[in-house]
Amino acid sequence: MAGEFKAKRSRLSNGGSDKSYFESYADITVHEEMLGDDVRTNTYKKAIFNCYQSLKDKVVLDVGAGTGILSCFCAQAGAKKVYAIEASNIAKQAKKVVELNGLSDQIVVMQCLLEDAFLPEKVDVIVSEWMGYCLLYESMLSSVITARDRWLKPGGLMLPSAAALYFAPICDDEITVEKVNFWNDMEEVYGVDMSCILPFARSSISKDVMVKTISCENVLSHPQLVVQFDLLKVSHADVQLVQHKFKFNSFGIADFQGFALWFDVLFPAHDVAMSNLSTSPYKPETHWKQSLLYLNNEVQVVQDSQLEGTLEMRPCKDNHRFLNIKLTCSVDGGGEVNKSYFMGRKYLYMS
Amino acid sequence: MAGEFKAKRSRLSNGGSDKSYFESYADITVHEEMLGDDVRTNTYKKAIFNCYQSLKDKVVLDVGAGTGILSCFCAQAGAKKVYAIEASNIAKQAKKVVELNGLSDQIVVMQCLLEDAFLPEKVDVIVSEWMGYCLLYESMLSSVITARDRWLKPGGLMLPSAAALYFAPICDDEITVEKVNFWNDMEEVYGVDMSCILPFARSSISKDVMVKTISCENVLSHPQLVVQFDLLKVSHADVQLVQHKFKFNSFGIADFQGFALWFDVLFPAHDVAMSNLSTSPYKPETHWKQSLLYLNNEVQVVQDSQLEGTLEMRPCKDNHRFLNIKLTCSVDGGGEVNKSYFMGRKYLYMS
Repeated sequence: MAGEFKAKRSRLSNGGSDKSYFESYADITVHEEMLGDDVRTNTYKKAIFNCYQSLKDKVVLDVGAGTGILSCFCAQAGAKKVYAIEASNIAKQAKKVVELNGLSDQIVVMQCLLEDAFLPEKVDVIVSEWMGYCLLYESMLSSVITARDRWLKPGGLMLPSAAALYFAPICDDEITVEKVNFWNDMEEVYGVDMSCILPFARSSISKDVMVKTISCENVLSHPQLVVQFDLLKVSHADVQLVQHKFKFNSFGIADFQGFALWFDVLFPAHDVAMSNLSTSPYKPETHWKQSLLYLNNEVQVVQDSQLEGTLEMRPCKDNHRFLNIKLTCSVDGGGEVNKSYFMGRKYLYMS
Repeated sequence: MAGEFKAKRSRLSNGGSDKSYFESYADITVHEEMLGDDVRTNTYKKAIFNCYQSLKDKVVLDVGAGTGILSCFCAQAGAKKVYAIEASNIAKQAKKVVELNGLSDQIVVMQCLLEDAFLPEKVDVIVSEWMGYCLLYESMLSSVITARDRWLKPGGLMLPSAAALYFAPICDDEITVEKVNFWNDMEEVYGVDMSCILPFARSSISKDVMVKTISCENVLSHPQLVVQFDLLKVSHADVQLVQHKFKFNSFGIADFQGFALWFDVLFPAHDVAMSNLSTSPYKPETHWKQSLLYLNNEVQVVQDSQLEGTLEMRPCKDNHRFLNIKLTCSVDGGGEVNKSYFMGRKYLYMS
C-alpha cells in the first residue's frame, strides 16, 4: 500500500548536512523521476520551443539546472547564451551533457548556490522548474525571485510566467479501506483484535500532508484558486504566508475526508494551442501527484452541504524548505475542526 | 521504478531526534507493513503455538513488542505472564490491544528502553522480532542479547533460537534495463543525448545497499552461509564484525551484477512440520526482500567462472544502527574490485 506514496523529490540547493545526500543514489533517482515525468519535461520543452521568438539570440538563466535538460532546450531553441546554475554535484553531469550535445559554446554550467553566483551580464529570460509539492514545499521560488531581481532585464521573460495553487474538498474511500480497515481485519487474519488502534492509525495518517494521486471522481466540489503568483511580480514576502477563506458546496452524498491541493504553472501563450503544466486531478498524472490534507474523521455530506473555513500555508520557521499548513473547517455550520499539517524532511527521501 | 524499493522499516528504540519520527505517520505504516507481512507474522504465530509446551504457565519477555501481537500470541499459547517492552509510543496502542483481547492479567506492557527496564523476575522465554535488512541493519539484536544476559533463566528458550545470513552472486538485468538504459533513452524521448550520465547513474545506484526483491532465477551460484548466530550464545562482540571469505562457481553464462544477502531465523522444532522464517529469494516474499550489493559494472561470466573474495559487515561507528559493508571480489583470478556500501538513515523512512 505504501506504493501510493512512492514519488518523492529532492533538489535542496544547500550543502552541509545534505552533502552526502546529494552524492547518494537518491540524487540520481530524483533526476530519473523528474526526467521520467514526461508531462513535466515535455510541457517545458513545448513551452520553450513555443517561445523561440523570445529566445532567439537571447541570454537565458536556468535556475536549478539539474541535469541541464532545460538549458539544452533553450539552446536548441536558439538562445545565444544560457547560464545553467546548479548547486548539487549533478552539475558535473550537466556539463558533460552540454559537451556531448555540442552546446558548450552556448551553455555555461555553474556549480554554486544561486545566491552566490556571479553573472557577467543581465539576462533576457529566466527559466526554472522550481515547483515542489503543494507548489511551495522545499521550493526554490525564493531563489527564482532573487535571480529575477538581480539579473532579469526590464521587460524580460519568466518561464513559467505564473503559478496558481488550487484546492478542493475530497472523498477518498481508498484511505479508509486500505489504511483504516486494515486494523479491523487483524482479528480475522491473526486472531488478535487490533481494532482499538484504528483512531491512532487514522490520526497518524492525517498528521502529515500526504502525496498521492487522486482522480476527478474524488473531488467533492468545484476547485477554488488559493493563490496566484505572477512570476514577474511575486515578492519574497508573498510566499511567507498564503491564506485562503473557502466556502464549498458539496456535489452530492459522499464521505468528506479532507482536501486536496495542486497547482498549475503557466507559460506565455505565443501559440494558442500551448498547454500549461497542470498537476490537477483532472489532468494526466505527474510526479507531483496531489497533496492531501486528511481530517481525523470522515464526515458524511449531502448535496449542497456547506464546507467553510480557512487554509494557511507558511514555510516552517526552523527550515524554510518545509511547510506548515493550518486548516479550519466546519460542515453546514457545525463545530469547527482545527488541524495542523507538517511537510518535513521525510518527503526529501526517495522511496 | 522507485516502487521496487518501497518497503522500508523502522523500529528504532531510542528517543532523542527520533521522537518526532515515532509520532509520525511513518510510525503507523511500519506496523502496518510488519503486520501486513503475513509470512513474518504467521511464522511467528505458528512457531509460538508450536512451543505451547514450553510456554504453558511460563514467564515470557517480548523485546520490542510493537503493537503487542507476539505478546498476545504467547498469552494465547498459555504463558502465565508476558512482559512486553516497547520504547516507542506504539506501546500505548499495545496496551489497548492487550485490554481489548482480555489479556491484561497475563501481559504487562512497559514503555521504556529495554536497557532501562526493570523486571521483577527472571523469564523462561524471550521472544523478539529483531531482524533488520541484511539481518543486522538497525537491528535490535544487541538489546535481545542484553535481555537474555539479564533475565533469561538457565535453560530458558529464545524465540527465534538461531539466525543465519546467506550470500550469493546475482545477475539482475532489470537494473540495467530500468536504471541504466533510462539515460540512453533520453535522446529519443526529448532530443537531448544524456548517455554520458550513465556511469554516474550506475555508480550512484551501487553506493548503497539496495533493498529489492529478486527471484531464484537471478541467483548465479549456490548460496553460501556467511554467519550463523545461536541466540543462546551470541555475544555483543559477535555482531561487531561479520567476515566471510567466498568462492563461488557460476551456474552458466550471465551478467554478474553483484551479490544478494538474505537471512533465515530458526525456531525450536517441536513439530517436524515447523517452518522457519526465511527471506530467501527461493521463498515467498517478505517485507525484508533481499539486500543487494551492485558492482559498478557488470561482468560477463560463463559456466564455472570463479568469483572469489571477501565480505565484511560492521555497524557504523557513528551510529550503531547503520551498516558498513566492504566487498572485495575477483572473477577468474582477474583484477580485484573493492567496494564499500553504506546502509544509513534513509532506510528508516517509509516510502
